[in-house]
Amino acid sequence: MNKESNSTELKIFALNSNRPLAEAIAEEIGIELGEADITRFEDGEIRINIEESVRGDDVYIVQSTNDPSNDYIMEVLIMIDALKRASARTINVVMPYYGYARQDRKPGPREAITAKVVANMLTIAGATRIISMDLHAPQIQGFFDIPVDHLSATAILVNYFIDHNFGGDGTVIVSPDHAGVSRAREMAELLDSPLAIIDKRSAGHEVDEELNLVGDVKGCTCILYDDIIDTAKKVTRACKLLREAGAKDVYVCVTHPVLSDNAVERINHSGIKKVVVTNTIDIKEKETCSFIEVISIAPIIGDAILRIQGHKSIKPLFDKDYVDRLTH
Amino acid sequence: MNKESNSTELKIFALNSNRPLAEAIAEEIGIELGEADITRFEDGEIRINIEESVRGDDVYIVQSTNDPSNDYIMEVLIMIDALKRASARTINVVMPYYGYARQDRKPGPREAITAKVVANMLTIAGATRIISMDLHAPQIQGFFDIPVDHLSATAILVNYFIDHNFGGDGTVIVSPDHAGVSRAREMAELLDSPLAIIDKRSAGHEVDEELNLVGDVKGCTCILYDDIIDTAKKVTRACKLLREAGAKDVYVCVTHPVLSDNAVERINHSGIKKVVVTNTIDIKEKETCSFIEVISIAPIIGDAILRIQGHKSIKPLFDKDYVDRLTH
Amino acid sequence: MNKESNSTELKIFALNSNRPLAEAIAEEIGIELGEADITRFEDGEIRINIEESVRGDDVYIVQSTNDPSNDYIMEVLIMIDALKRASARTINVVMPYYGYARQDRKPGPREAITAKVVANMLTIAGATRIISMDLHAPQIQGFFDIPVDHLSATAILVNYFIDHNFGGDGTVIVSPDHAGVSRAREMAELLDSPLAIIDKRSAGHEVDEELNLVGDVKGCTCILYDDIIDTAKKVTRACKLLREAGAKDVYVCVTHPVLSDNAVERINHSGIKKVVVTNTIDIKEKETCSFIEVISIAPIIGDAILRIQGHKSIKPLFDKDYVDRLTH
Amino acid sequence: MNKESNSTELKIFALNSNRPLAEAIAEEIGIELGEADITRFEDGEIRINIEESVRGDDVYIVQSTNDPSNDYIMEVLIMIDALKRASARTINVVMPYYGYARQDRKPGPREAITAKVVANMLTIAGATRIISMDLHAPQIQGFFDIPVDHLSATAILVNYFIDHNFGGDGTVIVSPDHAGVSRAREMAELLDSPLAIIDKRSAGHEVDEELNLVGDVKGCTCILYDDIIDTAKKVTRACKLLREAGAKDVYVCVTHPVLSDNAVERINHSGIKKVVVTNTIDIKEKETCSFIEVISIAPIIGDAILRIQGHKSIKPLFDKDYVDRLTH
Amino acid sequence: MNKESNSTELKIFALNSNRPLAEAIAEEIGIELGEADITRFEDGEIRINIEESVRGDDVYIVQSTNDPSNDYIMEVLIMIDALKRASARTINVVMPYYGYARQDRKPGPREAITAKVVANMLTIAGATRIISMDLHAPQIQGFFDIPVDHLSATAILVNYFIDHNFGGDGTVIVSPDHAGVSRAREMAELLDSPLAIIDKRSAGHEVDEELNLVGDVKGCTCILYDDIIDTAKKVTRACKLLREAGAKDVYVCVTHPVLSDNAVERINHSGIKKVVVTNTIDIKEKETCSFIEVISIAPIIGDAILRIQGHKSIKPLFDKDYVDRLTH
Amino acid sequence: MNKESNSTELKIFALNSNRPLAEAIAEEIGIELGEADITRFEDGEIRINIEESVRGDDVYIVQSTNDPSNDYIMEVLIMIDALKRASARTINVVMPYYGYARQDRKPGPREAITAKVVANMLTIAGATRIISMDLHAPQIQGFFDIPVDHLSATAILVNYFIDHNFGGDGTVIVSPDHAGVSRAREMAELLDSPLAIIDKRSAGHEVDEELNLVGDVKGCTCILYDDIIDTAKKVTRACKLLREAGAKDVYVCVTHPVLSDNAVERINHSGIKKVVVTNTIDIKEKETCSFIEVISIAPIIGDAILRIQGHKSIKPLFDKDYVDRLTH
Repeated sequence: MNKESNSTELKIFALNSNRPLAEAIAEEIGIELGEADITRFEDGEIRINIEESVRGDDVYIVQSTNDPSNDYIMEVLIMIDALKRASARTINVVMPYYGYARQDRKPGPREAITAKVVANMLTIAGATRIISMDLHAPQIQGFFDIPVDHLSATAILVNYFIDHNFGGDGTVIVSPDHAGVSRAREMAELLDSPLAIIDKRSAGHEVDEELNLVGDVKGCTCILYDDIIDTAKKVTRACKLLREAGAKDVYVCVTHPVLSDNAVERINHSGIKKVVVTNTIDIKEKETCSFIEVISIAPIIGDAILRIQGHKSIKPLFDKDYVDRLTH
Repeated sequence: MNKESNSTELKIFALNSNRPLAEAIAEEIGIELGEADITRFEDGEIRINIEESVRGDDVYIVQSTNDPSNDYIMEVLIMIDALKRASARTINVVMPYYGYARQDRKPGPREAITAKVVANMLTIAGATRIISMDLHAPQIQGFFDIPVDHLSATAILVNYFIDHNFGGDGTVIVSPDHAGVSRAREMAELLDSPLAIIDKRSAGHEVDEELNLVGDVKGCTCILYDDIIDTAKKVTRACKLLREAGAKDVYVCVTHPVLSDNAVERINHSGIKKVVVTNTIDIKEKETCSFIEVISIAPIIGDAILRIQGHKSIKPLFDKDYVDRLTH
Repeated sequence: MNKESNSTELKIFALNSNRPLAEAIAEEIGIELGEADITRFEDGEIRINIEESVRGDDVYIVQSTNDPSNDYIMEVLIMIDALKRASARTINVVMPYYGYARQDRKPGPREAITAKVVANMLTIAGATRIISMDLHAPQIQGFFDIPVDHLSATAILVNYFIDHNFGGDGTVIVSPDHAGVSRAREMAELLDSPLAIIDKRSAGHEVDEELNLVGDVKGCTCILYDDIIDTAKKVTRACKLLREAGAKDVYVCVTHPVLSDNAVERINHSGIKKVVVTNTIDIKEKETCSFIEVISIAPIIGDAILRIQGHKSIKPLFDKDYVDRLTH
Repeated sequence: MNKESNSTELKIFALNSNRPLAEAIAEEIGIELGEADITRFEDGEIRINIEESVRGDDVYIVQSTNDPSNDYIMEVLIMIDALKRASARTINVVMPYYGYARQDRKPGPREAITAKVVANMLTIAGATRIISMDLHAPQIQGFFDIPVDHLSATAILVNYFIDHNFGGDGTVIVSPDHAGVSRAREMAELLDSPLAIIDKRSAGHEVDEELNLVGDVKGCTCILYDDIIDTAKKVTRACKLLREAGAKDVYVCVTHPVLSDNAVERINHSGIKKVVVTNTIDIKEKETCSFIEVISIAPIIGDAILRIQGHKSIKPLFDKDYVDRLTH
Repeated sequence: MNKESNSTELKIFALNSNRPLAEAIAEEIGIELGEADITRFEDGEIRINIEESVRGDDVYIVQSTNDPSNDYIMEVLIMIDALKRASARTINVVMPYYGYARQDRKPGPREAITAKVVANMLTIAGATRIISMDLHAPQIQGFFDIPVDHLSATAILVNYFIDHNFGGDGTVIVSPDHAGVSRAREMAELLDSPLAIIDKRSAGHEVDEELNLVGDVKGCTCILYDDIIDTAKKVTRACKLLREAGAKDVYVCVTHPVLSDNAVERINHSGIKKVVVTNTIDIKEKETCSFIEVISIAPIIGDAILRIQGHKSIKPLFDKDYVDRLTH
Repeated sequence: MNKESNSTELKIFALNSNRPLAEAIAEEIGIELGEADITRFEDGEIRINIEESVRGDDVYIVQSTNDPSNDYIMEVLIMIDALKRASARTINVVMPYYGYARQDRKPGPREAITAKVVANMLTIAGATRIISMDLHAPQIQGFFDIPVDHLSATAILVNYFIDHNFGGDGTVIVSPDHAGVSRAREMAELLDSPLAIIDKRSAGHEVDEELNLVGDVKGCTCILYDDIIDTAKKVTRACKLLREAGAKDVYVCVTHPVLSDNAVERINHSGIKKVVVTNTIDIKEKETCSFIEVISIAPIIGDAILRIQGHKSIKPLFDKDYVDRLTH
């Protein structure tokens, strides 16, 4: 007996970290963002009031957890709790940038694994799925026992460089440190270009770390590829090194523009031709500069949501050709 | 076979919300605070490094979660994770002021129960005990399935007023709203004084709420008793009403001095004789004013910790005479 | 491939505490109660046998946990287990009266929080939703991490008094103690009437508590409003006090008629004009008396179930006008 | 730093089901029972108040869950919650008779496994160990993920019969049904006696089950051995059959004297010489009859508790000679 | 808003233990087996790659956990994890033979309950339902808190013997030990035949156990009925005993043909007329012998899956007539 | 009252994977290994019988999970269950080689994270601590919410090379792939030597991957440093490449000698001077060859256990000087 049809709707809500991205995703899908009021009490405590019914619905919350990370994390936890108590059918956290990811292991004795702390919090609050992009370490998927749909911006970023005629032997993909070599190797193969690695060794306690370039960049255009650009110190120093080694132009390509401290200023004075980033993090008006180019990942996330709702594989989203069609 | 003696030590660590209180507690107990480095990365993420072994120890973390609550909550969660992974035997969270407590039920449809969100986070992170004081609602104890030692500042605050010759028929204890009547009635009985209640009714959408005084305060000294003073709007309006009703002097007595917005300024211009608070929240230099009197709860918490460690009941801490001895 | 259509049915089962209410709810919805056999072995152990398939169904169990609470709690736990093992899709516990709710905090050292014990039992047994009414403390919602649809009888009870021409200045809403002032204030506003409070203070060890009336009831009709009427001692004493204070007539209005001990007899001799209650608890034939008027909450619960099944908000159920239409 | 010695005490508390046994156990150990007040509110809800500190202690709760099972189960759950919140170090439930054990599997479609419901409740409430005796099915140990110390009364019961010169070829151990054959075989081997089995087959819907005796009892003394005697119907019918088959005398030996319905009366008229039981269940004054002999298991449980506290194996408690020494 | 239809498909995957059965089940249902690649790395670690989308699907994994049990258990755990992370809607483990079931209690001090270990592993990995057959102890259902659909091969095996004109007084059903008497009694009633029991007693340390036959088999055809045939030692010794007692022919009937050690050879030389088994375990070509007859349970499991998917009761599957129709 | 002293003992048990290491660890500590019987039933199921009391003890299980991994994993899970039910106080799993670690993320769509599967199994079975060494990815620590003491063999391996006069400019540390660069960089700094990296790129579908050497090894002694040597294909190809690039001698240094397939034979014919490994995995007699040198990590693990028991930090174990003293 089914006295009432119990239809399930797809609803997307934006919290405070990246409303422009949420709007772009909703537009891709062809719906309006859900109505929710995220305010602060006078003592700073967050209050969330969802202004439309979510009973039985599949809800997607769009929230990156960049600075101020703690506020954005609490927002998403409180939102999840509100949705759970309001009987949402599924609670899908779209977290394009997953903050606290760089503490993904015990860096020293008696330190926390904060990426796991966040994972546990999201799970216990009631999230039923995480959708993220270019996690600092892919092992973070294993911090969850709920499904994690881990998207990649590599195809969309590579497409940008192909469209601008990069690639082949004249381009060198550079990993700015050891940890990122696998990521750089992947881009190098997609662009059919050689690879170089910046090797950092500590040179004693009083002096700075010493950087060595492993590989040849003379006369080439370099693309420094990384997942995060934070203070921009690493890339500006790398740029200097590459220039000294005879590089023609230096481009930086990263998924997540954290851009803390004086990052923008550093970029302005670095001689880097262009910093190509995505909008996983909202770099507001004031922070943009002519050297930074932002590529939207809304088409990928929008399509991922439709595929998840439609019970289709998200595997094609990792395919360069598919992304090409999606974003042109 | 016990090749090594495995002694368990009592260690107390302060996070950033209330280091002076943590120091006072440690001094009561006669030990030094543990060494821990709580810093921020440049993008605002918290990093905690505990600088001494806690393996097998009983650790107490002192942290209130007042403004900025989200940062202080993340600090304590990260600290708990670090302690858990560092093999602390027990992790006791001393949270004299439990933030987000006022959202202790669903205030409207599709809202969160944030006090429960925080409780779940503390538990899943690995806390083994909570020690708190004058929780906004005592039911919050039931949000936990780990032991909660719920202390009260009532005895210590009543002692203050007895020492200053309040009490009896010349004093009236006033509850500033309906929700606090039971709390005010308790103080009224300890001071052997009558009770009055401020009755608030909404007077239509365009006008302000209308306040009525239920009870007689003419010629009396009033003590407005509440758990939290936040913006101070409630008590300043209450003070005005009591004055109009013929009250001689108006005192305010609360456990937790949240003092957000322009609370201090409001108090300065309110005509309130004195606002008696405790140091569950650290009201830094700049916020103190001559009208605010701070009473330390460090002796109570220190004794509670010693009793917990010594496997003794904490019941005496609720006894006025005992607290009297403890704090004089 | 879907070889078989897998339709989900709505099924309602009654356990032993309140079959008449369950039948009324089923009738509101237009279905028959499900068949289940709840028997006792000769040693008193409960055995439940569900006599129709519930595989893949949305099942609602109607069970209040009034006296004998322990039996009724075990019935519901065993029923949940049976449904879970029989592959019900959702298990919704309709518990109009939530017993053990008055122990919702630690009342003294080394006591249990029984309302939480019950919440944990329901959750671990496999309940996926609780539907309750006028919980003794709204914080009990936070004892659960599954959705709680918390309904209110206030609108339906206020409607009764409006229909009988109560309200305005001639009526005074009286809270029988401090704890219930907020509840009474809410009714006072809906009836546009003033408020009075009964203030109870302990008068030393040898004598009874002393009651004071705060507010004016002279010449007025009083409605004593509370969530529970248990032994009826509180309301009969309150009635006496109100009469002495000049009240014309005294009515009592409560959601849950626990009526233990000699409550009915006390009411008969109390001079109370009418005790208006709901049927959250089944007060069987023998216990009814001419002074007790029972109002059915079946329309509200029936509509709530249909809304939950139909993925619609239950918010309108809190609206006086809506309830008015629903029940007339 | 250890400012206070934190000694751990062994404490034993009795709830309402079997206080005489609890007292006997405490006496074996040489301590007094702990003080706890288990009362009922007027509406039947249980309230437990532990009247001495249990902070850091190893607490043993003695409670069988015979009729009224539901009340006794709720008592133990509430007691566990109180102890957990009062910071007991370990909570050991001594449940000599584990009620609801006969529903240890799904007996039919859509029935509960009540023995698992009870196991889950005990675990979630906070029990850290179960001590039980002659569980109806040993698999119930696997319903728990906390340690279960499963004691046996076989040695103590066999000793009784040896002391009274039973055993050898003149005695036949009889299993009253198929399910208990293994248990009877164990006793047969300890007494060096042959085995007989009562085979029950259903003889169509209109007539009673038909009993057949498999094995020879002519001229022998029979001991019917089972774990539970409930209504006594099974043993009285078995006795009749054995008599018809030429048995000289018929004894009944069971661990748990449930004795529901008119069991005692049935025994009185059955011709059974003696029903030897233990005191896992308290068969109060009024229920005793000259045919029932009660053997105390307090020495076994007392020794088990001391061994658990002393970190010693409980294996010797299953040894006939050891038990012999222990109880003589 | 439902931009995409989100249909749920039924998918069946075979792991390595019993692919022929999985194929037969899929054929019964009329679908193809899902594509999954189960391989081994060179160091023996299992790798599973599911080669088609399972997003939102109801997935059934067919896997018995016979020898090599540990490999087959790890296969199913890894498969469950892969399905969970790939967003399957439900994960139903069809485990016709549940290995490690014979350790279903603590057989001695300090031993594991391995059947519970396996149950916990399946649950924590993410299984949402277990479908098994003739569990060694029905209590194993209670080791799970997820639904267990426990099927029986009794009807299908009884049908075999009826089809071959067994039954009535000329046939005796024999339980090979005490533990299996209830199972044998059930078959005896379905075939309207008498029962016999083999009683095993230990005859001192130096000599073998002594077997006694309880019941009369002279001139009759015997069917030894058990759940598992492992080394075949028990049935070959039983066969010898029955022959000595005058049995005409001896048949063996078991659900699960474990057949370890030299079981097949033992059967070949035992004089047993026929060992009737099911295909819950795949007894590959090499192990079959002319004395072993395999009856397929694929029709029962196939119908069970369709009923589960179609939200219909599986109760009819226990009915002899129904199975008769199903398998003819 | 403490009738019995309840001393806690340290006990170490070996399972089947690496008994020589367990014996060496026990010898370092100065105790005997605990008695436990790990056998197989004839159908291959594992049975563990712990032959001495572990009640209240701190137990350490030594078990690597190399090939046959599934058997060794089940052994440790069954052992944990047995210890938990036998009331061990803590259950510490010493797993020097953590198998299944290379599947530490989703390598492709619809694959499992087997390292997390194993972590969840260990935790749910009841392990209270993991002690492991050189985890394939340090993020695996975050797969646990129990403490993981993650030891490193780097210091002990570096000491070997220092003792044999390696280091400085004449030695080059080579990472065999991108993923291991950080590890190689760490050794390079400890030996004060330069770094080289082997860069692998896929060269189309039909041909093999193409290896490039990044860095200069001409005339130098190379140490290929990795965590695992499995089939030895990677290092033999790397050796060939290094020789072609002018390397003088090539050494291989790895923590975990998995040595599957024909690894030993490959090493024999590779021209590698020496493969320096530890005994985290027991490479039995037959597999040793003159080219393989095994260094014992027993001193480190023994000291770690003593430190854990003695509540001391394990940090010194990462210090090269400390290890030097420990092992000389």
